[in-house]
Amino acid sequence: MHANEMAEDFPVVGVESDAWAAVTQLAERRLPGLVVCDPAGKPLSILPASQVVRILVPSYVQDDPSLAGVLSESMADRVADKLRGKTVRALLPNDAPELAVVNDDDTIVEVAAVMARLRCPLAAVMRGEEMVGMITASRLLQLALTPPATRPSSRPE
Amino acid sequence: MHANEMAEDFPVVGVESDAWAAVTQLAERRLPGLVVCDPAGKPLSILPASQVVRILVPSYVQDDPSLAGVLSESMADRVADKLRGKTVRALLPNDAPELAVVNDDDTIVEVAAVMARLRCPLAAVMRGEEMVGMITASRLLQLALTPPATRPSSRPE
Repeated sequence: MHANEMAEDFPVVGVESDAWAAVTQLAERRLPGLVVCDPAGKPLSILPASQVVRILVPSYVQDDPSLAGVLSESMADRVADKLRGKTVRALLPNDAPELAVVNDDDTIVEVAAVMARLRCPLAAVMRGEEMVGMITASRLLQLALTPPATRPSSRPE
Repeated sequence: MHANEMAEDFPVVGVESDAWAAVTQLAERRLPGLVVCDPAGKPLSILPASQVVRILVPSYVQDDPSLAGVLSESMADRVADKLRGKTVRALLPNDAPELAVVNDDDTIVEVAAVMARLRCPLAAVMRGEEMVGMITASRLLQLALTPPATRPSSRPE
């Protein structure tokens, strides 16, 4: 089994796209994160939902949550305020984790090795310069635990 | 809106429970992670799927994925080998991230503040010593973006 047979669709957003639209997608689809691509479609990074939550809370309230009451505006107002006119690039953390990237002919052990080294819960599967899908850590575990004959897959092996 | 109205069910496993059963649950339900509780039901930590992937790959292969080919056994054999007879405790990383814990009467801003400070994508909601549910970062964003009148919630406000 190679990476191209393990890959699944995963929502991606452009790094120059609208921050509000990206966060709305995260929220409405209840996603743990989005894959962020450059304008050519090359995956750059992950925007985790937890990072967006960080952006919404001032650092003095993060340090002392009992100060949360001093924020007089609603969360909806804070979201609008913090995201209006921004691009996805502005939401990415400075210390954004490196996204695991694998080739479409890598084996399951190779994919696991790259994910493990980067402690990354997602790997982007590339065919040359083109991203053909993503593999999540839980998908990899599912495939690792399932005997090939009964494996859930839409593609022949 | 308080934390008890935001909380949802989330799969938990006991820290002394069987590692194989926990990983099977992660894999079959395609979860990004599990909440790990002590025998009294108090949440201790999160076991991310990416941490389980780390356990399956020897460190020399993590450092050089091109060595993956030297592993002669299948991933299924590796899983069985690494998990047999172990408890969930043995799978937790030494540097396991602190789990965000909030009270059931905390506000949405207080929950966001705790998640943001700990960079944790999940918060356990406690009523005294009892865990009544979890709030994910994407659930929090969903609630933050939704006007109260149209908010998806099974409980009256």
